[in-house]
Amino acid sequence: MESFAERVTERVERFGPLVVGLDPHFDLLPPVLLERFVPEEMTFEGLAEAVLAFGVGILEALAGEVGFVKIQMAFYEALGIPGMVALSRTIRRAKELGFLTILDGKRNDIASSAVCYARGYLSEITAGGKSLRSFWDIDALTVNPYLGEDSLLPFFEEAQKSGKGVFVLARTSNPSAPFIQDEGGRVRVFEKVALLVEDCARRFFAGSPMSSFGIVVGATYPEDLRYLRGRFPRLLFLIPGIGAQGGAVEALRFAFLPGGLGALVNVSRDILFAYRKWGRESGEDFAERAREKALRYQETLRSLVP
Amino acid sequence: MESFAERVTERVERFGPLVVGLDPHFDLLPPVLLERFVPEEMTFEGLAEAVLAFGVGILEALAGEVGFVKIQMAFYEALGIPGMVALSRTIRRAKELGFLTILDGKRNDIASSAVCYARGYLSEITAGGKSLRSFWDIDALTVNPYLGEDSLLPFFEEAQKSGKGVFVLARTSNPSAPFIQDEGGRVRVFEKVALLVEDCARRFFAGSPMSSFGIVVGATYPEDLRYLRGRFPRLLFLIPGIGAQGGAVEALRFAFLPGGLGALVNVSRDILFAYRKWGRESGEDFAERAREKALRYQETLRSLVP
Repeated sequence: MESFAERVTERVERFGPLVVGLDPHFDLLPPVLLERFVPEEMTFEGLAEAVLAFGVGILEALAGEVGFVKIQMAFYEALGIPGMVALSRTIRRAKELGFLTILDGKRNDIASSAVCYARGYLSEITAGGKSLRSFWDIDALTVNPYLGEDSLLPFFEEAQKSGKGVFVLARTSNPSAPFIQDEGGRVRVFEKVALLVEDCARRFFAGSPMSSFGIVVGATYPEDLRYLRGRFPRLLFLIPGIGAQGGAVEALRFAFLPGGLGALVNVSRDILFAYRKWGRESGEDFAERAREKALRYQETLRSLVP
Repeated sequence: MESFAERVTERVERFGPLVVGLDPHFDLLPPVLLERFVPEEMTFEGLAEAVLAFGVGILEALAGEVGFVKIQMAFYEALGIPGMVALSRTIRRAKELGFLTILDGKRNDIASSAVCYARGYLSEITAGGKSLRSFWDIDALTVNPYLGEDSLLPFFEEAQKSGKGVFVLARTSNPSAPFIQDEGGRVRVFEKVALLVEDCARRFFAGSPMSSFGIVVGATYPEDLRYLRGRFPRLLFLIPGIGAQGGAVEALRFAFLPGGLGALVNVSRDILFAYRKWGRESGEDFAERAREKALRYQETLRSLVP
């Protein structure tokens, strides 16, 4: 079985490290889609159709150009069952189009609940001696470390079993990130998290240069990004914060390992909603504008690779 | 509009502080339900029907005796769309039966994604100037603090708007809890989280003795529970860890404010799966056995109240 790390490497070599972040903010959706699917009274079904059409439009426009998509669950869960149906169809379409799919759920819990999340998203569930492969056919999941090692291990274990990936939040890209993440003495919390992931990566992927476990490191903290990159050459980095969140592309100069490997760079709003800056007000050209913007990011990222 | 805190107080006065934790572990479900709904090949639909029937059976058995239910999302999400349908029906049934419903999702994210989770679970979503009341008709949500203050504020804001509650993980009940939660100098991370929630509670509920914001504090760390209770009289505590997780009921002696207020005590497996210890192997009596065990917990808790 090919590991997540191997699939990432293949795709980075073909498409570069760009991840398009599918965050379908309801208030930024192209008016043309809202008019079509939410004509008068708004319903969850209608808005979910608009969100689905938007996501699929973006994916179809970027297929063959971008290797990775990160799907933000919040925007689907908020639409209830119709939203979850849209999520499942979006994941399926991403897969058909050849994207490697990272589900951004930032999940975690303890004990058997953590096991259940891990199996439900990454491997297979069991009951009464029978089993079923995960409903959510994704390649990797983002996970929150606040509950500590025993809450992370089930995700690592299930991911390894099934060739999937796990990204643990270490240094997030938001202004309040330091509140908890900078706590600690000589070793700050976000480093401690990285050390834990590294330790598990060594144990689970002994002999491989790159593991299928990674950490989330915001481009908005470039010093920390550089420090972590130097310290943890075996971990995949998932790097948000470029573009709308204010992270500069220059911060990525130290994000990569030789050959441009080891880091995936997520851009969401700047690509998704490029039509609002460069396109028609109706948004009917949202997919083309997103494609242009993504290609520009691809070029910029290529120029940064050592 | 009645606040979450007021609804909690009413119910604690009628039913005591017991919360039944609905964690429908697939492997512990009564065989009689698996036989009925998963007769040969297992499907997500079949297992979700078994999970729904189990949850509704528990809720109907405890209605009028227990005031609160905490629903663990992991077990529903792991069953895909059929699981989410079962979740939505379970929430609806809990409401019909008069339970106050805490959704245990441990959600969080940053910026607009945090806002979307908060609106999606606690208030209303908007798009193109239209709005829709939350699909998930719950009373409170559990939230993870790793991303810091800017990730928590949207939950507090949306909860206050709509009279809902928020429980922020502070000191969780699992063995690895100290890994991050004990970091920090004079003020450990879990205290820092409590201070932040307290500060928001003061600002959002000036003039009320009890806020609708609370913290999760595991009974498995009795010294910390006692310390936090003394320090944060305005915060609601949601206390897991009793029973299967090893927390002793005696730890709760210092959990309450005068009158037995200020703390909700969650018990999951010990009640849900009482049939495995005290009932028939088939589990056909699971609901009655759960009811008996819940009533015994009610009595014990009453005897602890100062």
